[in-house]
Amino acid sequence: MDDKRDMAALGKAMYDMAARMYPICRSITGDGVRSTLKIVSQVIPLQVHEVPSGAQVFDWVVPREWNVRDAYVANSRGERVIDFKKHNLHVLNYSSPINATMSLAELKPHLFSLPDKPDWIPYRTSYYRENWGFCLSHKALLALPEDQYTVVIDSTLEPGALTYGEYYVRGELADEVLISCHICHPSLANDNLSGIALASHLARLLGDARPRYSYRFVFIPGTIGSIAWLSRNEETAQRIKHGLVVVCVGDGGKFTYKKSRRGNAVIDRAVLHVLSHEAGEFNQIEFYPYGYDERQYCSPGFNLAVGSLSRTTHGEYPQYHTSADDLDLISPRNLAESLQVYLKVVDVIEHDRIYINQNPKCEPQLGKRGLYGGVGATARPANEMALLWVLNLSDGSHSLLDIAERANMPFEQIKHAAKALLGCGLLRAAD
Amino acid sequence: MDDKRDMAALGKAMYDMAARMYPICRSITGDGVRSTLKIVSQVIPLQVHEVPSGAQVFDWVVPREWNVRDAYVANSRGERVIDFKKHNLHVLNYSSPINATMSLAELKPHLFSLPDKPDWIPYRTSYYRENWGFCLSHKALLALPEDQYTVVIDSTLEPGALTYGEYYVRGELADEVLISCHICHPSLANDNLSGIALASHLARLLGDARPRYSYRFVFIPGTIGSIAWLSRNEETAQRIKHGLVVVCVGDGGKFTYKKSRRGNAVIDRAVLHVLSHEAGEFNQIEFYPYGYDERQYCSPGFNLAVGSLSRTTHGEYPQYHTSADDLDLISPRNLAESLQVYLKVVDVIEHDRIYINQNPKCEPQLGKRGLYGGVGATARPANEMALLWVLNLSDGSHSLLDIAERANMPFEQIKHAAKALLGCGLLRAAD
Amino acid sequence: MDDKRDMAALGKAMYDMAARMYPICRSITGDGVRSTLKIVSQVIPLQVHEVPSGAQVFDWVVPREWNVRDAYVANSRGERVIDFKKHNLHVLNYSSPINATMSLAELKPHLFSLPDKPDWIPYRTSYYRENWGFCLSHKALLALPEDQYTVVIDSTLEPGALTYGEYYVRGELADEVLISCHICHPSLANDNLSGIALASHLARLLGDARPRYSYRFVFIPGTIGSIAWLSRNEETAQRIKHGLVVVCVGDGGKFTYKKSRRGNAVIDRAVLHVLSHEAGEFNQIEFYPYGYDERQYCSPGFNLAVGSLSRTTHGEYPQYHTSADDLDLISPRNLAESLQVYLKVVDVIEHDRIYINQNPKCEPQLGKRGLYGGVGATARPANEMALLWVLNLSDGSHSLLDIAERANMPFEQIKHAAKALLGCGLLRAAD
Repeated sequence: MDDKRDMAALGKAMYDMAARMYPICRSITGDGVRSTLKIVSQVIPLQVHEVPSGAQVFDWVVPREWNVRDAYVANSRGERVIDFKKHNLHVLNYSSPINATMSLAELKPHLFSLPDKPDWIPYRTSYYRENWGFCLSHKALLALPEDQYTVVIDSTLEPGALTYGEYYVRGELADEVLISCHICHPSLANDNLSGIALASHLARLLGDARPRYSYRFVFIPGTIGSIAWLSRNEETAQRIKHGLVVVCVGDGGKFTYKKSRRGNAVIDRAVLHVLSHEAGEFNQIEFYPYGYDERQYCSPGFNLAVGSLSRTTHGEYPQYHTSADDLDLISPRNLAESLQVYLKVVDVIEHDRIYINQNPKCEPQLGKRGLYGGVGATARPANEMALLWVLNLSDGSHSLLDIAERANMPFEQIKHAAKALLGCGLLRAAD
Repeated sequence: MDDKRDMAALGKAMYDMAARMYPICRSITGDGVRSTLKIVSQVIPLQVHEVPSGAQVFDWVVPREWNVRDAYVANSRGERVIDFKKHNLHVLNYSSPINATMSLAELKPHLFSLPDKPDWIPYRTSYYRENWGFCLSHKALLALPEDQYTVVIDSTLEPGALTYGEYYVRGELADEVLISCHICHPSLANDNLSGIALASHLARLLGDARPRYSYRFVFIPGTIGSIAWLSRNEETAQRIKHGLVVVCVGDGGKFTYKKSRRGNAVIDRAVLHVLSHEAGEFNQIEFYPYGYDERQYCSPGFNLAVGSLSRTTHGEYPQYHTSADDLDLISPRNLAESLQVYLKVVDVIEHDRIYINQNPKCEPQLGKRGLYGGVGATARPANEMALLWVLNLSDGSHSLLDIAERANMPFEQIKHAAKALLGCGLLRAAD
Repeated sequence: MDDKRDMAALGKAMYDMAARMYPICRSITGDGVRSTLKIVSQVIPLQVHEVPSGAQVFDWVVPREWNVRDAYVANSRGERVIDFKKHNLHVLNYSSPINATMSLAELKPHLFSLPDKPDWIPYRTSYYRENWGFCLSHKALLALPEDQYTVVIDSTLEPGALTYGEYYVRGELADEVLISCHICHPSLANDNLSGIALASHLARLLGDARPRYSYRFVFIPGTIGSIAWLSRNEETAQRIKHGLVVVCVGDGGKFTYKKSRRGNAVIDRAVLHVLSHEAGEFNQIEFYPYGYDERQYCSPGFNLAVGSLSRTTHGEYPQYHTSADDLDLISPRNLAESLQVYLKVVDVIEHDRIYINQNPKCEPQLGKRGLYGGVGATARPANEMALLWVLNLSDGSHSLLDIAERANMPFEQIKHAAKALLGCGLLRAAD
């Protein structure tokens, strides 16, 4: 892949894509998901799958499909005081339909707000316990007078399907790299639109390349989506050697890496290597069985080498799961920076191989091959140190990533050294 | 066992027991040990063993039995200036008999005091090198005028026996947990009476329960006692899977755990887990081949998983091995606190098993089993996180203690989660 | 070996030897090397080897032999402004002959100086790329006026040989310890003369002893010398169990240990143990594939357990590879201190064996063997703790160095304890 690619243009393209997806009301099923996948299809040739309601997926059953056309609470004067058309977070996601009149006291148990963030609308769901409700800012809640309210949710919960998208980039190897993002959150920009936008553009770049690994991109509703995908792709899952869950990659916070359950998989080491050489300060988190779809990929029956690479992560930023996670929270520049890190990780994964030093007894004479400086001075330039490291450790039990870690040098430098040594026959691939 | 048991009453019972044992002059053999074991017998149905003098126990020989009736140094006016009847520490433990008159200069080599703690009587022994002597405060030593002194030690060193006590609580398993304490120190409260009192009451509580492991409590004179016990119980020793030497558990200091020689045995991890979650600051010490009877249990020919759990330990408190280690140094409250920690450790040992997640592919749906909260908020309560941890790690290679360590949650929470999951069939025991 | 040996006299002998070698102009081949080895021969019975120019040694070819008789730059008045006879660093090492007249502009590309150390002459070489040149202080360079200069290097580059020295001390075992130092630097005192002097005197002391291991000392030109030696001694190399490259041992800096490529070899642990108990603060460096001849010994085809023990190391002191690395930088006292540490390391290597406790079940009774103190006090003296440690860990899987590390006691104390226990039959050697 070409490192000269225009990251600024890519940042803008990702941001614009997020902006197009922002107004859509998504959930774990329904037309919002379908509209979203259509936007993804404008970037990559996506395959869209539908899993019918009622299908058993491991311990779970695909729920009825949810669609909502309108939802509001109107006061006795007919004025809408809570209106889904103004912000789709206003409706409790997966609300069953209702059309009733009630007092404030009857309404209140169905209203959700955040007393400590009085201006923001919270995001709440009730997928598996039938319920109806509205979310609103705490200020708005406090302002509601005693009144008789008309409560309308024009939604349907009917047999339908769970929809997800998939894009497969065939590489030289059948071994796969999984990139997964969730697509079920409504108007929330960092927590899911940024991930969809980054995954789509990373997929496009890899589709244009001819990578060594095969890459599989899945765009799925959270939890039930990854469970459905895994239950229908058990054999495919065995080919997944490395994977990342892409979330919250548009804000300006430090990078955060949550390790796979294995804790020391190549993907864990690759990401941490890239972050330690490229990203200034960053956070590193041990695996825990909560968060996003890595929970399913890392369940003990699969235990895939899948981590999650984000900026500020899950629940750690104040705007998380509120109306303040909007298009102002993310930026083209942050998205581009995140994509850059993902590309570096892909570069490590692609080029991390074991080579064998063909002249293992003492150093080969690099000077006569034009690889070494002249009049001996005190310090060796980094490129010559990289040559020496690759030669010294290419004994069949160290991959280039092992060498980069031990040398504490950027992978790229080690990769270039290996290339030069391959070029003059001092190295050959082990496999 | 019932966590509602009255710890205050237990603390008082242990303290009162220590107070009853305090006046007795104990040594590694003799009637003081027998009287002490009689007091233990009032708490638990103790089996008392006698090993005859002259018996070979590994590299050692059981010494002649020592008993002392009176011992004093009187001045020329017939006044007792050092008097065993006032404090049994005054006589060098295991002194041979003497009845003689001598000058202060002749007496002095047989007097032991602590110049840097001038008010306290030291505790000294001479078990295996025949000798006689007196211990006294440094102040008292300095106050002795030139005089002719009558020196009387009315002791006997005669063929007899080494006495120890044993109590066995049969559990479901033949595998045993060893609880060992020494019973050879005379009027010293923390350094041995606290341990005897705690071990006795822990034994009573376990005898009333029906534990999974079998528990063996041994009340033995230090060093020669554990050597005698091991030499007569080599087969039993092979069944000991976990063990603790109980000492110095009555003072108010921080808890101290000295690891077994293995260093990472389950008992080591169980104690450190409990201390880190229950005990505030505590000390953790690597095994070293000195201290109490763990030296013998951890000798290379046995290498048992036996550590030692105390408050301020061996030689680390100023009153150690002096008359100031008296009943004021220990308290019912400290004894109860220590017993509580021992009970928590027993709880870990009892319940630390490996379970297998019966739904290992993706998470099971906890909500439909009533184990999971409703309208999705940001943070998971601890009990739900415990369920997720147990499910995620119950792959056949992690015990509940492994899971508690990795989740950094109290064992009890993990145990409760496992119980709930067992209840709904999502887990079964591996063995 | 006798610890009472006169270290001050040894320090003086090493310094005097360095002073005798200082004026000689050495390179990787030539008569300078031969003269140097003659001085070494006055200390130990050295075997001198010659490898002919053109010989293939692994990937390298032994170069033509270089000798230089005179070299200077004279101005138009015939005054020598740069003069090899004043300091042999003035000539670029391995310069081809030249006799020409040229302007300052033509001369300048062949002049090397250090702008940031304006008073010092740098040391530069051009072994494998034919070139000529002069090194001079930056002050002297700036002072050169425009002029026509006569440039003379009266050197020869002709078929000859590469010369190295070897000394073998036969011990009880065929297993060998390698001590290697380079002998190719001209008038540089710390960076190579200190190493030659220390290696020579260590060799003399070991030659007078009857060590357990066999010791092989090699005095070789850097890089090409160790490559030549390894290529001619592949079988011998397999017998090398431990090794050290001796360099920069005369300055007053902290000790520095660069580990072998293996990183946890016995030599690594032995050196670090000695330094941590004897040397105050010291530096510890992981292996990296640059530096001195450990690069070749630790190439993947050999991977010998060879580290490098120095004071201030390679490139870390300002005088490194300049005329300021002279006889004032090193001292008899520093050399003696360094030798002392080498002797301690040798002592560990010599005595690090596995013993088996012959009384593994419980402690043996040390008192009846006269190994243990009398009237029991609180603290054990170190020699008794050493006895207990050796007994406790001599289970067949811990060597004395393992025990010293775990006990955190000086090796010597553990060695003495083992000797005492061997003496009374409580221990026997495992092998």
